[in-house]
Amino acid sequence: MSEENKTKRQRAIVLLSGGMDSCVTAAVANEEYKLIFLHANYHQRTEKRELKAFNDIADYYGVEKRIIIDLGFLKDVGGSSLTDETIDVEISGNKTNGIPSTYVPFRNANILSQAVSWAEVLIADAVFIGAVEQDSAGYPDCRKVFYNAFNKVVELGTKSETNIKVITPLIEMKKSEIVKLGIKLNAPLHLSWSCYINEDRACGECSSCVLRIKAFKEAKIEDRIEYIK
Amino acid sequence: MSEENKTKRQRAIVLLSGGMDSCVTAAVANEEYKLIFLHANYHQRTEKRELKAFNDIADYYGVEKRIIIDLGFLKDVGGSSLTDETIDVEISGNKTNGIPSTYVPFRNANILSQAVSWAEVLIADAVFIGAVEQDSAGYPDCRKVFYNAFNKVVELGTKSETNIKVITPLIEMKKSEIVKLGIKLNAPLHLSWSCYINEDRACGECSSCVLRIKAFKEAKIEDRIEYIK
Repeated sequence: MSEENKTKRQRAIVLLSGGMDSCVTAAVANEEYKLIFLHANYHQRTEKRELKAFNDIADYYGVEKRIIIDLGFLKDVGGSSLTDETIDVEISGNKTNGIPSTYVPFRNANILSQAVSWAEVLIADAVFIGAVEQDSAGYPDCRKVFYNAFNKVVELGTKSETNIKVITPLIEMKKSEIVKLGIKLNAPLHLSWSCYINEDRACGECSSCVLRIKAFKEAKIEDRIEYIK
Repeated sequence: MSEENKTKRQRAIVLLSGGMDSCVTAAVANEEYKLIFLHANYHQRTEKRELKAFNDIADYYGVEKRIIIDLGFLKDVGGSSLTDETIDVEISGNKTNGIPSTYVPFRNANILSQAVSWAEVLIADAVFIGAVEQDSAGYPDCRKVFYNAFNKVVELGTKSETNIKVITPLIEMKKSEIVKLGIKLNAPLHLSWSCYINEDRACGECSSCVLRIKAFKEAKIEDRIEYIK
């Protein structure tokens, strides 16, 4: 796919955590853009496994430009079970109402801001992010209104000759629709990683695993990654 | 001033580069809030000197909580004479039209995003930034419209129980008015540092020095820092 990638003129930076949503987002961006991949390391529990997924998916699409950003400060900030090992990650059945412990304070604004700095210098026209509003866990920074507002900041806060847009192709989709779209576009879902807790075999119990399992089941697609149970 | 600081209930994070605008912004915030200072190290030419100014001003106000954020990625991003030593900083007389070389791509959005993450966890109600629209160098991220848009992102992208506002007390002021306000509020302007090029004695020629010299002159106030000429 590397050759095909070279013939596309406009560039897009795809934020690729390595999870299934970002994997399908990459597949959507690949339809129109030359791809640049960006991964955020915020010293989360499963960073090593996510980085492997990132590189595997980048290899699949023949992406040369790979940017790893370090948001290690989010571990210092704390306040989230994803970065603070003294806070337990909820298993889905026990989830309390409201915003879950896995919410990382203003994380997506930080990731997007760094991506836009890169986009301005690399002359990319789009920044793709696989945020999902429905079926999502109630994170305030996964809502469409948040991205609309962020695009206004990008428009006003970058040089006037730039034309960078943050694009959220999955924002209104259900998780099962995302799986179907991924299959349609040949997204390498088998290379993606969703579990918040484990790095070898997915736990099958954390909120992210539960959403993934439900999505594949509803889409009637086999999930080829390994689960403990 | 430490005792006085402890009796104020609401907290504000003040973004303190160490320059004169941020110094006066700290003085404004100090009127109403318990202060937290935040400094961004983006591997700029004069970082050491700026950090000294930051700590001197923090000592002056008796500020205990001092956060240094590392935006070293902006050096990797490049595209600015402040972080790339192969690009010359314009001396003011030679300045070309449009956005100057000292513009750092989407810098303020990155600094603000990190500050808001901290504000969410430290339960601060305000983030103060000393951006100035008039008299400023044409940076897109120093305009009032940019901060209005950013506040919308903060409102939508943080937990609903938070009430964090980005406050820009100087945004509509002239540089000479800022000097006068600083004197009125006993801001320690003699501890601030503005020069983009030197760390011992200010060059007096870069765009930042030229604006500062002009401001003090117009305000008819003596600038107590040392200049080469």
